[in-house]
Amino acid sequence: MDTIKSYVQQHKDRFINELIELLKIPSVSADAAYSQDVIDMADAVKSSLEKAGCDFVEICDTPGYPIVYGEKIIDKNLPTVLVYGHYDVQPPDPMELWSSPPFEPVIKKTEIHPEGAIFARGACDDKGQMYMHVKAFEYMIQSNTLPCNVKFMIEGEEEVGSKSLSWFVERNQEKLKNDVILISDTGMISNQQPSITTGLRGLSYVEVEITGPNRDLHSGLYGGAVANPINVLAKMIASLHDDDNHITIPGFYDNVEELSLEERAEMAKAPFNLDGYKKALDLNAVYGEKGYVTNERNSIRPTLDVNGIWGGYTGEGAKTVIASKAFAKISMRLVPHQDWEEITKLFTKHFISIAPAGVTVKVKPHHGGQGYVTPTDSIGYKAANKAYTETFGVPAIPVRSGGSIPIVALFEKELKSKTILMGFGLDSDAIHSPNEHFGIFNYLKGIETIPLFYKYFVEMSK
Amino acid sequence: MDTIKSYVQQHKDRFINELIELLKIPSVSADAAYSQDVIDMADAVKSSLEKAGCDFVEICDTPGYPIVYGEKIIDKNLPTVLVYGHYDVQPPDPMELWSSPPFEPVIKKTEIHPEGAIFARGACDDKGQMYMHVKAFEYMIQSNTLPCNVKFMIEGEEEVGSKSLSWFVERNQEKLKNDVILISDTGMISNQQPSITTGLRGLSYVEVEITGPNRDLHSGLYGGAVANPINVLAKMIASLHDDDNHITIPGFYDNVEELSLEERAEMAKAPFNLDGYKKALDLNAVYGEKGYVTNERNSIRPTLDVNGIWGGYTGEGAKTVIASKAFAKISMRLVPHQDWEEITKLFTKHFISIAPAGVTVKVKPHHGGQGYVTPTDSIGYKAANKAYTETFGVPAIPVRSGGSIPIVALFEKELKSKTILMGFGLDSDAIHSPNEHFGIFNYLKGIETIPLFYKYFVEMSK
Repeated sequence: MDTIKSYVQQHKDRFINELIELLKIPSVSADAAYSQDVIDMADAVKSSLEKAGCDFVEICDTPGYPIVYGEKIIDKNLPTVLVYGHYDVQPPDPMELWSSPPFEPVIKKTEIHPEGAIFARGACDDKGQMYMHVKAFEYMIQSNTLPCNVKFMIEGEEEVGSKSLSWFVERNQEKLKNDVILISDTGMISNQQPSITTGLRGLSYVEVEITGPNRDLHSGLYGGAVANPINVLAKMIASLHDDDNHITIPGFYDNVEELSLEERAEMAKAPFNLDGYKKALDLNAVYGEKGYVTNERNSIRPTLDVNGIWGGYTGEGAKTVIASKAFAKISMRLVPHQDWEEITKLFTKHFISIAPAGVTVKVKPHHGGQGYVTPTDSIGYKAANKAYTETFGVPAIPVRSGGSIPIVALFEKELKSKTILMGFGLDSDAIHSPNEHFGIFNYLKGIETIPLFYKYFVEMSK
Repeated sequence: MDTIKSYVQQHKDRFINELIELLKIPSVSADAAYSQDVIDMADAVKSSLEKAGCDFVEICDTPGYPIVYGEKIIDKNLPTVLVYGHYDVQPPDPMELWSSPPFEPVIKKTEIHPEGAIFARGACDDKGQMYMHVKAFEYMIQSNTLPCNVKFMIEGEEEVGSKSLSWFVERNQEKLKNDVILISDTGMISNQQPSITTGLRGLSYVEVEITGPNRDLHSGLYGGAVANPINVLAKMIASLHDDDNHITIPGFYDNVEELSLEERAEMAKAPFNLDGYKKALDLNAVYGEKGYVTNERNSIRPTLDVNGIWGGYTGEGAKTVIASKAFAKISMRLVPHQDWEEITKLFTKHFISIAPAGVTVKVKPHHGGQGYVTPTDSIGYKAANKAYTETFGVPAIPVRSGGSIPIVALFEKELKSKTILMGFGLDSDAIHSPNEHFGIFNYLKGIETIPLFYKYFVEMSK
């Protein structure tokens, strides 16, 4: 398959420019202000699938943002690969920390990306990684080497919980029928060491509101005499972890999958440099649950983090006020066997129960999803590993990711097929952060590797 | 002095309209965006003093906003009253909670103010109460009944710590020489029960910044493995109070003035209805330091309140991010004998000391001031009480206020004279809150009462 290498070399400028055009569309699903851009992005994905060679492409309406479906069926008796990706992106703020505007993509060289990286919101998560599949598909069509059927399902609500996707999947099981699901929405260890994500954490995301007095009060006249919603919220949040950083919600750990010492020893083999990790984040120390190391804390253990907090006067200078209300957005990362809806219930019950007299509490669930573990002995996993081995020269290492792709568990349940997570991004790509970027090397390497997965998956399926 | 009553009746519409014009100027000292308005407000105060009858008025430059000084010296051998007030106001936000725009004054009747109240930011604190003195002075000039010398010192930085005022007072002790300082920047118990504030709390106001990782991080990939600045801030804030709501900062209570049981019993005589208090704030319970009742918690006891907190994603929807930084504005109300600079040092030292490894902490002092207690046996206090007794028909009750007027202690130190706090506002006037207002009754009653203070103060001083 040397021809894929040469095809990429020949067309790489076009591949980059096409991605840059997609990155200019601010398809932020979390903020209604961008809703037209999200719709425009769906149209752009549709035409890219048509150009690449799909026989049939449609924009499927849902209760939320549309899902772009495309397919190329060459022979009903051959296997079918279902490619999933998402065209929506995270909100760009804090804007002031971007060195270039989030929706005006620029290519810059970095230490890790000497060949350059594309800087823009969504460059890696997930427009860049999604578009690798479109371009790999284009190659297989152009070179007449597509060995099986392909279906594309590209959604627009991944960053806000994929509500409409589950609605869509439940209603289109026949249409989405497949032998393996292929997703590039994760990372790999490094550009020298590919890895395949075999585990994902689940997620429960809630927003809490604490109300004290019915209006903002003068802190001099009322300070010390009424419950201050901000102080109360701080106390309630603080109480959610004990001194060992275990989460204190009753029943929270009941179904947590406990790994054996052997499994933990196996995980510990993955290359990891704690000093480098701390240095990259300018941290003097790491932090987390007692009894576990960094690579376990962010993968096999559930966590609780406040993602946003606000209340009272946050402007310039000083205002001596006791706010009537305080708010926080809180997310819990869950591990396999923890049910996200159950955890959301446990959180809600507990959080309301710890509120002191003098305040009222509201808990609003945002969204969630189940954790997932994929076996390493499946044909799909083996085909992916063989593809990486060929393009990177070394086998991929199986790793548990701390991230969540809630719909992976849904796919298994509704479509009865396994998902292979072929990620080409790096942790340093700053997804969900200012200055998100995606290496040109990674982008092109992905386009090179994906056709090999098709080849080996079909061969091994015979 | 019936003529003051008739003078007020004759001119009240003009008095109200003149105040409304002043309230239209958004002189918010905390926000640089309003700086020109603050300057304009100083000019408006200057011309109001000239019109009222001052011989000499000047706008005195300072390192910050100017101080308006005016005087009427009738006889060097007569006593001199120094009137202090401030022309700056609190920021108006949260704007959305105002039933009418904060700088477009409207008169509305309320249950407590059947004769109507002026709704606008600064209506009570302190433009309305400051302007009562200008109009009372106008009356004494017009009726040729001014019994002594008067000096006005109206500043523009009271809401942000009066930094320039202390600078000004230290440099103008001769110019500001006086026998008593008169301030209306406090409240009274009710329109039927006047009171004189005899104690004020001190203040220390700081802003804290917690920095974790050098950039916002994906909560899935890093959650549980690095210190989350928001969770850490919550834990640190929570730890500043123990389970009895005592403040845990070492040394914080060392110099706190402890009142005798007799004094506390005397305080308890002030009319107070706990159910009414809770009902007015829609609270199911009050909250505070164990061992003290509400009226003690907000007056004779020091407190610590978070006035504002922010960090991470606070927009619409969900963002799974670990913020790089989290911030809070924290103020401590202090009681007599607690030195605000000492307390600020203790807070800073303690707050930095409780930070866990994995974050860095910055504490930025905003401003502060000393607490103050005024004796009830001074000529000034007696004259004020006599004036209230005459206009309200009942003697005033001495009360300790939870609020702070940092410069009162400064005046005693630099000018060696006592301050009399003749407040005409009510707690329900919502100062520092949306829908701040000032009763027409209170405004006119103040104009009526103030000339009587002059009369009795001069008589008793003979």
